[in-house]
Amino acid sequence: MSVALRPRADDVLAGRLARSAAADGSWISTADFPAWLEERRRAHHFKVERIPFAELDGWSFAEDTGNLAHRTGRFFSVEGLSVTVGEGPFRHWEQPIIRQPEVGILGLVAKEFDGVLHFLMQAKMEPGNRNLLQLSPTVQATRSNYTKVHKGADVKYLEYFTDPERGRVVFDVLQSEHGSWFYRKANRNVLVEALDQVPQDDDFCWLTLGQIGELLRLDNVVNMDSRTVIACFPMGRSEQGALLPDAAVQSWVTLERSRHDVVVDRVPLAGLKDWERDENSLGRPDGRFFELVAVSVEAGSREVARWSQPLLEPTGPAVAAFLVRRIAGVHHLLVSARAEAGFLDTIELGPTVQCDPGNWRDVQAPPFLDTVLQAGPERVVYEALHSEEGGRFLHAEIRYLFVRADETQAPLDLPPGFQWVTPGQLNDLAGHAHYVNVQARTLLACLNSGAARLDDPA
Amino acid sequence: MSVALRPRADDVLAGRLARSAAADGSWISTADFPAWLEERRRAHHFKVERIPFAELDGWSFAEDTGNLAHRTGRFFSVEGLSVTVGEGPFRHWEQPIIRQPEVGILGLVAKEFDGVLHFLMQAKMEPGNRNLLQLSPTVQATRSNYTKVHKGADVKYLEYFTDPERGRVVFDVLQSEHGSWFYRKANRNVLVEALDQVPQDDDFCWLTLGQIGELLRLDNVVNMDSRTVIACFPMGRSEQGALLPDAAVQSWVTLERSRHDVVVDRVPLAGLKDWERDENSLGRPDGRFFELVAVSVEAGSREVARWSQPLLEPTGPAVAAFLVRRIAGVHHLLVSARAEAGFLDTIELGPTVQCDPGNWRDVQAPPFLDTVLQAGPERVVYEALHSEEGGRFLHAEIRYLFVRADETQAPLDLPPGFQWVTPGQLNDLAGHAHYVNVQARTLLACLNSGAARLDDPA
Repeated sequence: MSVALRPRADDVLAGRLARSAAADGSWISTADFPAWLEERRRAHHFKVERIPFAELDGWSFAEDTGNLAHRTGRFFSVEGLSVTVGEGPFRHWEQPIIRQPEVGILGLVAKEFDGVLHFLMQAKMEPGNRNLLQLSPTVQATRSNYTKVHKGADVKYLEYFTDPERGRVVFDVLQSEHGSWFYRKANRNVLVEALDQVPQDDDFCWLTLGQIGELLRLDNVVNMDSRTVIACFPMGRSEQGALLPDAAVQSWVTLERSRHDVVVDRVPLAGLKDWERDENSLGRPDGRFFELVAVSVEAGSREVARWSQPLLEPTGPAVAAFLVRRIAGVHHLLVSARAEAGFLDTIELGPTVQCDPGNWRDVQAPPFLDTVLQAGPERVVYEALHSEEGGRFLHAEIRYLFVRADETQAPLDLPPGFQWVTPGQLNDLAGHAHYVNVQARTLLACLNSGAARLDDPA
Repeated sequence: MSVALRPRADDVLAGRLARSAAADGSWISTADFPAWLEERRRAHHFKVERIPFAELDGWSFAEDTGNLAHRTGRFFSVEGLSVTVGEGPFRHWEQPIIRQPEVGILGLVAKEFDGVLHFLMQAKMEPGNRNLLQLSPTVQATRSNYTKVHKGADVKYLEYFTDPERGRVVFDVLQSEHGSWFYRKANRNVLVEALDQVPQDDDFCWLTLGQIGELLRLDNVVNMDSRTVIACFPMGRSEQGALLPDAAVQSWVTLERSRHDVVVDRVPLAGLKDWERDENSLGRPDGRFFELVAVSVEAGSREVARWSQPLLEPTGPAVAAFLVRRIAGVHHLLVSARAEAGFLDTIELGPTVQCDPGNWRDVQAPPFLDTVLQAGPERVVYEALHSEEGGRFLHAEIRYLFVRADETQAPLDLPPGFQWVTPGQLNDLAGHAHYVNVQARTLLACLNSGAARLDDPA
């Protein structure tokens, strides 16, 4: 029996991704894109309204636990979490958390046009998004979605991610999402290069990586699911050197993971300390963190045209920023080891700063927050507002930044829990699960796509 | 401020490891090693005796939960687990499980002698080991050990793994241990190359990787903790090709992880279905799986000279084997995706076969078990008995094998949950947490050290 072996690694991929990052599109020019998106917006009917919990259809609070769940037991539920950590101003707390044990698919289909890789992006409505319609990956589906628990239409292009014959997998890796809001959620982040002609659908467009980068410079156009997939693109950056060898970076991650004692217990949503529920929301009297609310949705371009669901609404806009330094000629990002309660494996690497400053108004602010907030325009390399998962969060916007820093602002000798790594090191870690959190991945997507260029004068 | 960057990767490491794997030792010849180990055995007093639970000192069953724990709350505890899985003959069961949330250190110190890397191995007594004394890594310590909860002596050489100035980290990665017996246990697996002279202690010897390989051909000499660290050695195998590219292997792991529904709940040890406790043991009337027992220990070379503790005793010897095929000239190993109840992230890759055949005596045997058990000597490339973690398990021996197979015995077209990967692919995956289980890592250590040579005529 004769079998052909295949090369273990794809040596030309990094070059093809770099070419795509530098190219305008064959399918639509970047200049024409806003009109296309506006046309898609007009082609559909969207309406999202806040409703009282009692008007939720199919969702209810369980009598015993108070947990909020769908009658099918699918989609997701809102439960309680009791958390104890070993450091920081908040050592013990209780909170609601979204539990969604099914692994979903965030899948992007790629194809070459005129020798340049293009990616099939979808204009997709999500009830929690600013502007409702944003660019999602080709497929963005929970298992409940694609096994059609809601009895809606088929998920388009799903077969590229379930049938290995339809394309060539470039990467396929589980990634976590917001550890403060989700309990151990993971989605497949997948890029598949199609082998044959790909049928075209109205709500889909082919864009180069460079075009996506252009759109990432705008507020609230490229959705979170797209950003996390793009963060995993193996760009093959091999910096000439780094402050720490890769093995030392990994050792630091391992040490951070083993030194943190995070005790997390699932508890009933009813009776959470410091949280109160009324007809319309579940939140905290001190107004911190987030509220749980309910919405009704009407949409003309989704699998189901009308539904209602809970959403988590953060109380204020957050900030997520990397401080950046050129060290001996090589760019380095200041990462933090974050012990978010919902992480499966204790810590993941986040941006230098990641918080809603309002939550820290009368406690010691996190390190480097002031350095980010007070940065003048000459230090800001990149800045944009992006929406987090619009299927679960309502108007959860984060201001994402890269901010240049010097030795006085961000020293080489760092406080515990911080480390300097190169963009290449962070990108390589994003090739495996449990290393890079979703906020850091948005910023990494900005680097991979060229939206943020660390060499640019600010 | 002038800062020197360091290369991200160590390009000469793989060559240095290969040289060490091919070399006899400068410190002791392999021929003289048995006499050295015997001398260490005679230098100390060891005695292990089964005792009733009531004679355990410091350990007791909690009145409410029946959980078995130490009065300090440290070390480990034995609790209950309720498990539901989606496939296989055992779909739901309850079982005792060892819970040890602290991350321990399995650390090996390396140093060059005469241009060849040697590794500092320790002759270490563990109560559950066959022969009691086996070769452990330089440091093998739980956090309870090295923070001296038991008020014993300092852990020798610990500073190499807690003080970054003492050496150069080659790798440092969390790895799981037995998912059927431990609840989400992880230890740091670390290799540090010492920068300066290393002081020598009586119970320690310097061996080359090749010498360790020779000893791995013997039964019960190299302990589990050594084997798992050696499995992580980055040998830099880059096979000319593979049946699946690395990205496709990773995609398969991701798919296996997302398709398994494993529901695991911690429950009290008291009242577990199908388990009964008497004065001397906690086990199953049908004699399957394992018993929990207690021992008293006297030892002259450990931090504490006398203690008692629970141990988990499997009811029969197990088998763990890789089927091996040369496919288009390149060796491939048949891995299985194993959903063990105690794994943090659903599945890890195990050997083709991993079980105690006695547990399967009246149910459908696992795939490929007969192929392994019935292999004639002409197909067995490697075979040895090794002990699992002697600090937690009593006489837990596994017969480890590499067995050559052909298309009729192990086809390219595989049942679900199995995949062909190269040794290099498996070795690369062992560079990160949650990919390769501890039994597969023992077999990988045999490859890395040359104990098993797939090119040898069987």
